[in-house]
Amino acid sequence: MRLCKTINEIGALIKSLRIENKTVGLVPTMGYLHEGHLTLVREARQCCDVVVMSIFVNPTQFGPKEDFGSYPRDLQRDSELAEEAGVDIIFAPEVEEMYPRGFRTSVDVEEITDVLCGAARPGHFRGVATVVTKLFNIVQPDMAFFGQKDYQQVLVIKGLVRDLNINVKIIDVPIARELDGLALSSRNVYLSKSEREAAKVLSRSLAKAQEQVANGVRDIEKIRELVLSEIESEPLARIDYVEIRSIPDLKDLKVLEDRALLALAVKFGNTRLIDNKVLEV
Amino acid sequence: MRLCKTINEIGALIKSLRIENKTVGLVPTMGYLHEGHLTLVREARQCCDVVVMSIFVNPTQFGPKEDFGSYPRDLQRDSELAEEAGVDIIFAPEVEEMYPRGFRTSVDVEEITDVLCGAARPGHFRGVATVVTKLFNIVQPDMAFFGQKDYQQVLVIKGLVRDLNINVKIIDVPIARELDGLALSSRNVYLSKSEREAAKVLSRSLAKAQEQVANGVRDIEKIRELVLSEIESEPLARIDYVEIRSIPDLKDLKVLEDRALLALAVKFGNTRLIDNKVLEV
Repeated sequence: MRLCKTINEIGALIKSLRIENKTVGLVPTMGYLHEGHLTLVREARQCCDVVVMSIFVNPTQFGPKEDFGSYPRDLQRDSELAEEAGVDIIFAPEVEEMYPRGFRTSVDVEEITDVLCGAARPGHFRGVATVVTKLFNIVQPDMAFFGQKDYQQVLVIKGLVRDLNINVKIIDVPIARELDGLALSSRNVYLSKSEREAAKVLSRSLAKAQEQVANGVRDIEKIRELVLSEIESEPLARIDYVEIRSIPDLKDLKVLEDRALLALAVKFGNTRLIDNKVLEV
Repeated sequence: MRLCKTINEIGALIKSLRIENKTVGLVPTMGYLHEGHLTLVREARQCCDVVVMSIFVNPTQFGPKEDFGSYPRDLQRDSELAEEAGVDIIFAPEVEEMYPRGFRTSVDVEEITDVLCGAARPGHFRGVATVVTKLFNIVQPDMAFFGQKDYQQVLVIKGLVRDLNINVKIIDVPIARELDGLALSSRNVYLSKSEREAAKVLSRSLAKAQEQVANGVRDIEKIRELVLSEIESEPLARIDYVEIRSIPDLKDLKVLEDRALLALAVKFGNTRLIDNKVLEV
């Protein structure tokens, strides 16, 4: 496995792969890898000749009061996990390599970034869209792999790729979960033992919503109320949002007529967790 | 010469050129070609195996009260001129092909777009940056050619390419002028005979400024006043802006210490013309 720290370095490597007609798969991450990331790697491994993983804690997608500084980082551990899972090249640039002095360009996907995590984290998706555009241009992958845990992010990136005519196929992969249902996240390490226990309420509430839908409930507000009350039954949980929106436009819905996204963000102590489920009608 | 109207069509063509290892040069235009555009084509012809010209009057770079509707268009004439000058492929999409329903992504280069034409035409450079990003992704050129008449545009595109790590070399080509000095522009056809005569004041005022600099004048305001009074001596001219700014950051200057951009926009009747000169110290 190769570790590249600079754009020139990985650029030269990619160029030589292109000459050999190798297909390239990119797994963009912020590191501190968990089984969710490794699922993406295994998927990429099956589809492409060469698997590139980027590891970059992107400052521009964090708000001023968010956890950029304290976000967990461990490149040594990540390298070992990545190699074991089948990564060929890690691209792990410093912040100055990605955002040199005088950097002033941004990429914005409008409307679908005004809701859910976009409303809760202003500027977050601009940061995501910009860094992903950069990574696509640097790595020039045939395919890129993203987890459905950030479902809105997947929709933003698919929109970006379509609108800007970026020649990359976006593959989204189901959420990886702990045995008790908690969605895997690098931020789970922040949870105290009691918060970790309490956080089980998230996947449980999503499952209950799907049950209601299976039982024929179609009233969006009714389903939403059920999820809210389930989460509110957990004293350590503080709800940021619980919403049900259309796919792929994330529009408001009154009645469930087609598959829709049930998405939520909930804080446990200082740790903000997200989870979601595509409600199938 | 091939004429492509759809992204799929040109995409397939580009793919086959890539397999043959041909280098591709792109000349982005809004059509209604003049000698300035053809100079870009000849430059591209010298540098690249294949020359692609895009012809697209991009609605998103026009303000609501600007001349998008009336902007001159003549694809038949353009095709003949382009072929004669050495274009291999014209890409001339319809608006719906570039901006299908649900389009909602934009690319923004900040700070340098707040001044000069960016201040006078809000949103203009966002439109330019977005469409150029799309064209680069669609055509995947090795090089792209732009005229220095839109000097700020050249700086915006160079910024965009650097910031987003787009793998295209930007070549900027000096302004093509009529024998009497008027910078070539598709908008010159709007000018009445008396306005056309009056418009000579623009290049004359730029030349006088350079003369002053050659004579040792370094006070920015003094040079600017000279240009203003020269243009104001022409009754048909209404000044939009005359400014001298640093290259490449377009910062305010007090004293000329290094080469700097003298840029102006002036209206003659309803026709807004721009011109500029890099003042060499």
